Amino acid sequence: MSLKKPYLLYIGDAPDRLAVKMAQGVLDWRPDWCLAQMRRGGTDIRLDLPEMTPQQAADAGAGTLVVGVVNAGGVMPDPWVADLIDAMEAGLDLAAGMHVRLRSLPGVAEAAERLGRTLTDLRVPDRKFATGKGTKRAGKRLLTVGTDCSVGKKYAALALEQGLRAAGASADFRATGQTGRLIAERGAAIDAVPADFISGAVEWLSPANDDPDHWDVIEGQGSLFHPSFAGVTLGLLHGAQPDRFVVCHEPTRTNMRGVANPLPTIGQVIDATILLGRLTNPDIAPAGICMNTAALSEDEARATIDVLASEYQLPATDPIRFGVDAIVAEVLR
Amino acid sequence: MSLKKPYLLYIGDAPDRLAVKMAQGVLDWRPDWCLAQMRRGGTDIRLDLPEMTPQQAADAGAGTLVVGVVNAGGVMPDPWVADLIDAMEAGLDLAAGMHVRLRSLPGVAEAAERLGRTLTDLRVPDRKFATGKGTKRAGKRLLTVGTDCSVGKKYAALALEQGLRAAGASADFRATGQTGRLIAERGAAIDAVPADFISGAVEWLSPANDDPDHWDVIEGQGSLFHPSFAGVTLGLLHGAQPDRFVVCHEPTRTNMRGVANPLPTIGQVIDATILLGRLTNPDIAPAGICMNTAALSEDEARATIDVLASEYQLPATDPIRFGVDAIVAEVLR
Repeated sequence: MSLKKPYLLYIGDAPDRLAVKMAQGVLDWRPDWCLAQMRRGGTDIRLDLPEMTPQQAADAGAGTLVVGVVNAGGVMPDPWVADLIDAMEAGLDLAAGMHVRLRSLPGVAEAAERLGRTLTDLRVPDRKFATGKGTKRAGKRLLTVGTDCSVGKKYAALALEQGLRAAGASADFRATGQTGRLIAERGAAIDAVPADFISGAVEWLSPANDDPDHWDVIEGQGSLFHPSFAGVTLGLLHGAQPDRFVVCHEPTRTNMRGVANPLPTIGQVIDATILLGRLTNPDIAPAGICMNTAALSEDEARATIDVLASEYQLPATDPIRFGVDAIVAEVLR
Repeated sequence: MSLKKPYLLYIGDAPDRLAVKMAQGVLDWRPDWCLAQMRRGGTDIRLDLPEMTPQQAADAGAGTLVVGVVNAGGVMPDPWVADLIDAMEAGLDLAAGMHVRLRSLPGVAEAAERLGRTLTDLRVPDRKFATGKGTKRAGKRLLTVGTDCSVGKKYAALALEQGLRAAGASADFRATGQTGRLIAERGAAIDAVPADFISGAVEWLSPANDDPDHWDVIEGQGSLFHPSFAGVTLGLLHGAQPDRFVVCHEPTRTNMRGVANPLPTIGQVIDATILLGRLTNPDIAPAGICMNTAALSEDEARATIDVLASEYQLPATDPIRFGVDAIVAEVLR
């Protein structure tokens, strides 16, 4: 999978920063691919990019409008659909990461056909998967897991890929969500796979590796403690059969995202991940803790991390703020 | 959902009895709906029904050919597809429970359109679901869980619906698979729902009930210990938020179906179900054990059941052979 670059990142009238995490993700990890943003009136959210219309972006060389915002309720508002058609008229392909297919939006398939544009649904599986087998595959695997959704599992995995490579190890980030797939240009959004094939899809995206010392760094999804998505998380854990896992956490979060449940502790996540992960890898063990401390001062962040490292006797860090050297050292030990 | 009755049950060249469990299921629980079977050369498997061609079945009043066999690898052999088209030519509608849609088979959609026949895919979701909320719903719920796939969770749930009703309680079987849906004519095959919506689909199919003493008896799927399908099982457990659960087991099974993993013990299933089920129902508790003892003599069956009842201090039975009175009494206690 490869989209025409660079991108115009569409964020519509996003209500908050979490709503634009797909746009922010590709901008943070593939800044060279991102040319401009396009907003609608009514949002204060912005990326660190110039604002352009589709025509301005196309004139400046853009290849694809990427819908980088979550649409509430899974329904795309009519004005957004009109913007997408304008973008195709201006010469841009479209990519999006919703459960609903781009071609099912009114007028989009017809415009794409008439104008010869490509529609890419990053979240919709573009292949069939087998059911999981659960048998051991060659090579090593690290999975990021979380106390909740949206706590930094993808950023931690991407930082660990970079860190392992910088330390001379062979490593590949394996995307399991639409934003990861946008960044890696491969992988599968496992939350959109038919439920029977969750672990099978993960076995496909992290296949046996000829190099026994190669690390697949697999992006986690959801949380074993999230009542909406724990099934996805467990199927991912079984398919990933990780040798090591890193727990990701956002210290200011008080409730599981979107539901009433309280957050589990990091210790509960470690215990549950080992208990359930042993089914496909009896040697599963934690390798560290990655905190998203963006809401804390640097002093608060360091203090929080030190407490956790001591409490759990594991390397702890904010992967973006302080790097992942200690976790990489633990993984390669 | 309602199919034209009675049915011609198609079992193709099924390799073994587990392959025809969909046909056997509707015959066991809805015998009045089943008129005849249709086989292909090469199988010794048969149902307790007369053999008919589609034309003979149509002449005898059949309304629908139901594909009652699992097709290896998810690909339907060409001769089977030819049989389906013959059946439509003879006047029959089609129903099937595969991941692949009937209309995607070569020539099937065209024949259905030309002849005015209805195609029903029992496994394919016919609606969109919301993500699970995890909040408590009114009414009571019982879930059947298992040491493995295909150990009798659906039969146990159907027997418990009957038993609860016979004891004067209000109870409804809630189907979560294609065979259950064929029997109940409602529900959803949750293993075919996009992974994000497993628990949400279960919340939909077992909604809040105005009667606080009403029991939804929810059909279990897979096993928390099956490396291919545990994600489905966990999402189902969280969506079902059961007050009570019944563990189903097949005592001659040595390996998890289709994979190399050993079977868990009933005690492991009880512990894991309570540990993980507490997330959406802190009061979850076991109510009994249902054994499929078809492979045992009656004496062996009684002895096996007595040992389990004593070991786990729970009512134990073979729901088909010995009834479910003891479990019903425990549930209504």
